[in-house]
Amino acid sequence: MSKIAVLGTGNVGNVIGSKLIQLGHEVMMGSRTATNEKASNWAKSSGAKACHGTFTDAAKFGEIIFNCVSGIGTMDALKQAGVENLKGKIIIDLANTLDFSKGMPPTLTIVNNDSLGETIQRTYPDAKVVKTLNTMNCNLMMDPSLVPGDHNIFVCGNDADAKAKVNALLNTIGWKTSNIIDLGDISNSRGTEQLLPIWIRLYGKFGHPNFNFNVVMGPSPKK
Amino acid sequence: MSKIAVLGTGNVGNVIGSKLIQLGHEVMMGSRTATNEKASNWAKSSGAKACHGTFTDAAKFGEIIFNCVSGIGTMDALKQAGVENLKGKIIIDLANTLDFSKGMPPTLTIVNNDSLGETIQRTYPDAKVVKTLNTMNCNLMMDPSLVPGDHNIFVCGNDADAKAKVNALLNTIGWKTSNIIDLGDISNSRGTEQLLPIWIRLYGKFGHPNFNFNVVMGPSPKK
Repeated sequence: MSKIAVLGTGNVGNVIGSKLIQLGHEVMMGSRTATNEKASNWAKSSGAKACHGTFTDAAKFGEIIFNCVSGIGTMDALKQAGVENLKGKIIIDLANTLDFSKGMPPTLTIVNNDSLGETIQRTYPDAKVVKTLNTMNCNLMMDPSLVPGDHNIFVCGNDADAKAKVNALLNTIGWKTSNIIDLGDISNSRGTEQLLPIWIRLYGKFGHPNFNFNVVMGPSPKK
Repeated sequence: MSKIAVLGTGNVGNVIGSKLIQLGHEVMMGSRTATNEKASNWAKSSGAKACHGTFTDAAKFGEIIFNCVSGIGTMDALKQAGVENLKGKIIIDLANTLDFSKGMPPTLTIVNNDSLGETIQRTYPDAKVVKTLNTMNCNLMMDPSLVPGDHNIFVCGNDADAKAKVNALLNTIGWKTSNIIDLGDISNSRGTEQLLPIWIRLYGKFGHPNFNFNVVMGPSPKK
């Protein structure tokens, strides 16, 4: 069992924090202020292993840090967390830089030749950023059985050991190893973050978020 | 059977042109010059219903126009095709604006708040642009059985009748109606074109292009 920081008090942070508590981890939910009502309510209702504090408190506490802040708020939240508290830590980045300010559908504030995952890794070179979970709704992240059969979760990051630990954690959440696709280094965040534009359109079409991508493969073509 | 223009003499144009001939259509392959060797060779080896000419010739000839030019070359090729020859025509755009000039992996020259599909539709408002087929390798486009089981092809465009005709053509190629996802209007090209960054990374990982995305859905969550 690990000490885990969940940065962010929204729906994503709540769903992830609660699942991690259920799995037996100690979880501190972090927010901008020490007295955040949503974080306080979550901790009160989540048992003895749940607590809350500032982004700084949570980052100090966690061996693993889940970035559940909005993509646009991420760099600010990590700044508050503090470079010294992120050093050597695994940062699981599941955010997407969706910008809803220009109307629907949203655009991405970091795109094409950069990504949020890379931006975090570049800004905190001593942290081990693993980008994953960002290509689906938070309920599905924490319960892959919401969509029947095989479907994929993508993982990328520069540190093989950190990815192995994240994959093991994903296994405990219910993700089968055969459905976890390791894309390689953190620059592959560009690939997964740019899945969001079609994800959002599919969400609009289907009217609910219980869907996911399954990469289906045929035999290699004959040369 | 239709008269179809295939713009582009590369591998994509060849595979698509040959499949359309096999289905019984009349196909003119278009290129920058009337004497293009690749187009000439393709036409010679493809039987009586195959011919070739300039982009202008091909656009005049075709009731349906397949844009098989590279994404970066598309607007130039369509300019040569001529606005008067595109009027009222269905343009099936399967290109992606992949820019390999800055090294691998490529970036997209149109991205985020615009797309190639929209750019074509905006530039040729009297044409009926249908964006489809662009999320997979050209052999798979023309033979979905290369990947076993269900997997999806995305279609979008502003003209419902044009999309219905394209879907019927896709059916004849082997795409089941249940695997065709109509995303809506042409702005949804942003979603499918931005699938390319992850497609390219998966291609690198798998070492061959015989794979595709299948969107798997679970039941709608209870309110």
